[in-house]
Amino acid sequence: MTTRPRGFIVVTGSELVRGERRDLNGPFLATELLRHGVEPARISIVGDREEELSHALAEGFGAADLCVVSGGLGPTHDDRTVELVARAAGVGLRLDEELYEQIGGVSRRFADRLGRPYADFEAGVRKQATIPEGAHSLGLAGTAPGLVLEDGNTVVVVLPGPPAELQRLWETALESEPVRRVLARGRPPELRQLRFFGASESTVARALADAGGDGDGVEATICARDFEIHVDLVVEPGAEARADELMGELVAPLERYLFSRDQRPIEELVLGLCRARGLTLGAAESCTGGMVAERLTSVPGSSDVFVGAVVAYADGVKARELDVPPEVLSRHGAVSAEAAAAMAVGARKRLRAEVSVAVTGIAGPGGGSDEKPVGLVFLHAEGPEGSRSADFVFPGDRNSIRRRATVTALHLVRRLLQQTRDESA
Amino acid sequence: MTTRPRGFIVVTGSELVRGERRDLNGPFLATELLRHGVEPARISIVGDREEELSHALAEGFGAADLCVVSGGLGPTHDDRTVELVARAAGVGLRLDEELYEQIGGVSRRFADRLGRPYADFEAGVRKQATIPEGAHSLGLAGTAPGLVLEDGNTVVVVLPGPPAELQRLWETALESEPVRRVLARGRPPELRQLRFFGASESTVARALADAGGDGDGVEATICARDFEIHVDLVVEPGAEARADELMGELVAPLERYLFSRDQRPIEELVLGLCRARGLTLGAAESCTGGMVAERLTSVPGSSDVFVGAVVAYADGVKARELDVPPEVLSRHGAVSAEAAAAMAVGARKRLRAEVSVAVTGIAGPGGGSDEKPVGLVFLHAEGPEGSRSADFVFPGDRNSIRRRATVTALHLVRRLLQQTRDESA
Repeated sequence: MTTRPRGFIVVTGSELVRGERRDLNGPFLATELLRHGVEPARISIVGDREEELSHALAEGFGAADLCVVSGGLGPTHDDRTVELVARAAGVGLRLDEELYEQIGGVSRRFADRLGRPYADFEAGVRKQATIPEGAHSLGLAGTAPGLVLEDGNTVVVVLPGPPAELQRLWETALESEPVRRVLARGRPPELRQLRFFGASESTVARALADAGGDGDGVEATICARDFEIHVDLVVEPGAEARADELMGELVAPLERYLFSRDQRPIEELVLGLCRARGLTLGAAESCTGGMVAERLTSVPGSSDVFVGAVVAYADGVKARELDVPPEVLSRHGAVSAEAAAAMAVGARKRLRAEVSVAVTGIAGPGGGSDEKPVGLVFLHAEGPEGSRSADFVFPGDRNSIRRRATVTALHLVRRLLQQTRDESA
Repeated sequence: MTTRPRGFIVVTGSELVRGERRDLNGPFLATELLRHGVEPARISIVGDREEELSHALAEGFGAADLCVVSGGLGPTHDDRTVELVARAAGVGLRLDEELYEQIGGVSRRFADRLGRPYADFEAGVRKQATIPEGAHSLGLAGTAPGLVLEDGNTVVVVLPGPPAELQRLWETALESEPVRRVLARGRPPELRQLRFFGASESTVARALADAGGDGDGVEATICARDFEIHVDLVVEPGAEARADELMGELVAPLERYLFSRDQRPIEELVLGLCRARGLTLGAAESCTGGMVAERLTSVPGSSDVFVGAVVAYADGVKARELDVPPEVLSRHGAVSAEAAAAMAVGARKRLRAEVSVAVTGIAGPGGGSDEKPVGLVFLHAEGPEGSRSADFVFPGDRNSIRRRATVTALHLVRRLLQQTRDESA
């Protein structure tokens, strides 16, 4: 169906193929390829053993229009990517004089700083300045050059493993003549988003099926993230009308759950709603232990809206710092609708915030009972014109329960500020 | 060098190969394989297109002793893993009557719950109960069966994509006769850890090189995480003495930076140190916005030590809720050593915690100046017998700065409680 150029991604690193470190470069490069109209066909993660890496490179060269290789560019004998790329492309290696000068300069400064003789580095410099015949440098990351070369119909881009360096040199690769030639044949899809809260994944899946499902140039991915359901649509050129129709039919039965048509996270939307009305925001957290505040303060510039939070883990802190009446704690317990409401009221007053949100619950694994099981969470949002509350028994482990409670708290604030028709959280 | 059986991991999912969702199954399975003495040779991530998936399966079958396939087991036509596994193994498909009954039962209950006729599900049930000749079920995840089969010398395990389901059925796969036969040939390595704080990655790398480097049955990975340096050692059977020697030589020049020889995160160590002395702990956070509290409360059972935190984002909250004297804020500013000390003292008093830690800084991207640049962070820990303080200009973006400040705050508490010889944080 798609006629876009094919992209292969080869990631090398023993710690990656052994699961000791999670690969960030594959997903980054895949997103970038698709955005530029190249179809990511495969991500191969291999160690630094010659056999495995050679095999993965051989598959990419020839089969792919664009093959991006990450990692294994260091100065030691374990870093064999350049040598094996040359072999897979059937070309020799040559010492690039210009690179030799550049890398030598960097290494000299490095040797000076460490107080070690430059001679210790010379072999490494020579190794890193030795590149495949026909390859061009994309610039240095530390002492490692990014490279671009061609093997038959495949354009090969070789980038360093550290994600920040890879991302920087990828920008240069996009400007290089061989890559531009591939991208000129690229057919960038349109990427659309729908974000729902409060609907289950199967409800959204069913609505998608009832709307005719994807296909005909529109690919839909449904992804549950904490308590949100994210629908991502990849729309092929020419399929825009079908995408409009599908989105219309998908949204109609789910409208009350739809909260966004873009990628902005809920914390950004909440801060925006407060900012638009000139309201400040504060939080009172028990089981989420600071996660609501952390999400809100992750947004640059949040300080014009968010004033702070009280993480009241101990009951004494709830009583003293949030003015939760001791009789609420003794009669209803710290995990109760009454405690959540008192915490929100207390946070509003003590933090002098116009809007506040409170969370209290049992994140587990211990501390649950028949009456109050692990996962039980009470939430309360308090604003100048009213309040909203909700309670849930969230499934999952401690981490899931805390993340879901955090996301739900942020959506409770959104709903309070939007004063939606629907009263169920 | 290693003679262990080879493992291949094939992960399928359009959203994964396109980078829309990050793959969790590859790293999980890789860690599991290595732990059981199977060498993870490759992780291939492909979409659900026939050509790509078939190709990846064909590579795994034959080349690997154990090939684990994840995803594509759903009831729809896009889920083609089982069909393509059969084709790659050169066997036909058969309807498994027992599975048909089991999946039918699950689907009937599901249909009832949704109020839809079972007939809508029948085709899906039939599809999911149809498995390769010679394959055995590992049990159901929802309506999808995990499978084990053999193709020549390769044992193939097919597992569902959702990580929790995959992990559950993997446990069953480990008990199956064909997998046990592979694992009996496995040579589990010993996994060792060294964790440093305060040393740079290049200092640790140099110490490793000076100690003779890895090799001879010991593989070392150096990984910088926030401000910690993690060294992971994979020790082949028989290389224990070399590992002891290497670790001894590596630790000797870095001893003052070594904080752990296991995988426990710093928050757990800090809680343990407090618990051992019967001390409670609280926090006052500005730029980290709740991240210190979040890390501490991520540990189950933290409530016996951690009482809470004040996230004082606004200066008013610092003054009112942490008793930071207004003249400290006006004279030195909210980002100052004086403010950090006052916040820690205030948190200790207000939260009635015996130990407290405070963080204040400029996380950026805005708000920096020549005198106080983005990344400048002041930290202060206060305990019953003394205090420690530190300041840094952390490199990186907002998220990195916040994470590094959080980790540094936790290590400051550790050092306060350990009263180390070295006074530099």
